[in-house]
Amino acid sequence: MTQGSNKKAIILLSGGLDSATVLAHAVSEGFQCHCLSFDYGQSHQTELAHARIMADALGAASHRTAHLDLAVFGGSALTDETIDVPDADLGNEQIPVTYVPARNTVFLAYALAWGEVLPAYDLFIGVNAVDYSGYPDCRPAFIEAFERMANQATKAGVESQAFQIHAPLLHLTKGEIIQKGVKLGVNYEDTVSCYRLTDAGEACGRCDACVLRKDGFIEAGIPDPTRYVR
Amino acid sequence: MTQGSNKKAIILLSGGLDSATVLAHAVSEGFQCHCLSFDYGQSHQTELAHARIMADALGAASHRTAHLDLAVFGGSALTDETIDVPDADLGNEQIPVTYVPARNTVFLAYALAWGEVLPAYDLFIGVNAVDYSGYPDCRPAFIEAFERMANQATKAGVESQAFQIHAPLLHLTKGEIIQKGVKLGVNYEDTVSCYRLTDAGEACGRCDACVLRKDGFIEAGIPDPTRYVR
Repeated sequence: MTQGSNKKAIILLSGGLDSATVLAHAVSEGFQCHCLSFDYGQSHQTELAHARIMADALGAASHRTAHLDLAVFGGSALTDETIDVPDADLGNEQIPVTYVPARNTVFLAYALAWGEVLPAYDLFIGVNAVDYSGYPDCRPAFIEAFERMANQATKAGVESQAFQIHAPLLHLTKGEIIQKGVKLGVNYEDTVSCYRLTDAGEACGRCDACVLRKDGFIEAGIPDPTRYVR
Repeated sequence: MTQGSNKKAIILLSGGLDSATVLAHAVSEGFQCHCLSFDYGQSHQTELAHARIMADALGAASHRTAHLDLAVFGGSALTDETIDVPDADLGNEQIPVTYVPARNTVFLAYALAWGEVLPAYDLFIGVNAVDYSGYPDCRPAFIEAFERMANQATKAGVESQAFQIHAPLLHLTKGEIIQKGVKLGVNYEDTVSCYRLTDAGEACGRCDACVLRKDGFIEAGIPDPTRYVR
């Protein structure tokens, strides 16, 4: 409870495994955590309910969901019903169709807007550059470039405050993320990763997100609490 | 009709004087112009109708309006009904209450998302660092930092394409912008700048935006077609 000393922070919270771990991390560092989720026409809307559960369970100070109009542009299997989510193909060097164009840029831009209003100069995002799907906006160079831009974009830049983008999972493997979260008391049963969740809330077990998650629990040596389709 | 050679471009179009001039400029440079407007809870909604008129009048290839949830954060006289728009106070060095937190960051992030989908690597924005209200996200350093970030954020960065943020009005005075637009055939009567437009469509003549506009026409030596409240 030192670094944050009850400073306000904004946590991008999706309902998935990574951002829940980030929230637990920021709380443990002593930040007063204001969570931001997005309803952006994603086909796996269940994650918003899970975001709410995690915000409550992990002691967030507040939680807001902003509605985003990303589906208007199409171009991703996550927002465009005419594109199917494929089975995992993580060895492939192509950027997968589940990539949502400029998603993290838009998410962080919103966090920045809320950060200016609160104000909260510490913005947390659960991007990861190790066990990830190859999305360009999960790379360290993106995080650094966004932080620099944020300090030019805002009153903060003018008034000599500084925004800081925290990406505490950036260099962790999925297994290390899970071990960290378990130590911090995250109940991963209440998080959802699958892009093709069934109406009964069962994960497909075969999309990129499921495969990364499954392998993570194996690597961590921790039983996987996820309910998969048989 | 050389530079653009019919390449697709995205133009942020507000219905105001500046972005109409930018659209006319991009069309004259030979770009195929796809215009993007935002409904972000701004109190001066009339500008969206004017954006549509300008897109049609100036030969845009398409025009979309995205709905943004910026009012959810409050903090600006333009999105928060409890904050009044004040009379102009342009000598003051404070950032005015009409500043919308991180607005241009959010707008450009959306342009980037659409740009990835189309694809269109040329994004145009009508920011101006001379006769402006002192918003931090209108400064050249912001535009440069956003462009750098955009090329880290996207497939373009991975695939060696490059996004370019065009801000053709950045170093022009308001008078020079108007002279440029008139040469390109912009009918400024169909643009709206006022933050406190009456229901009858008359400009207040006293807010920052009105004062900058009025002074611009005087500087340009061109009759001001704006209908002001008597």
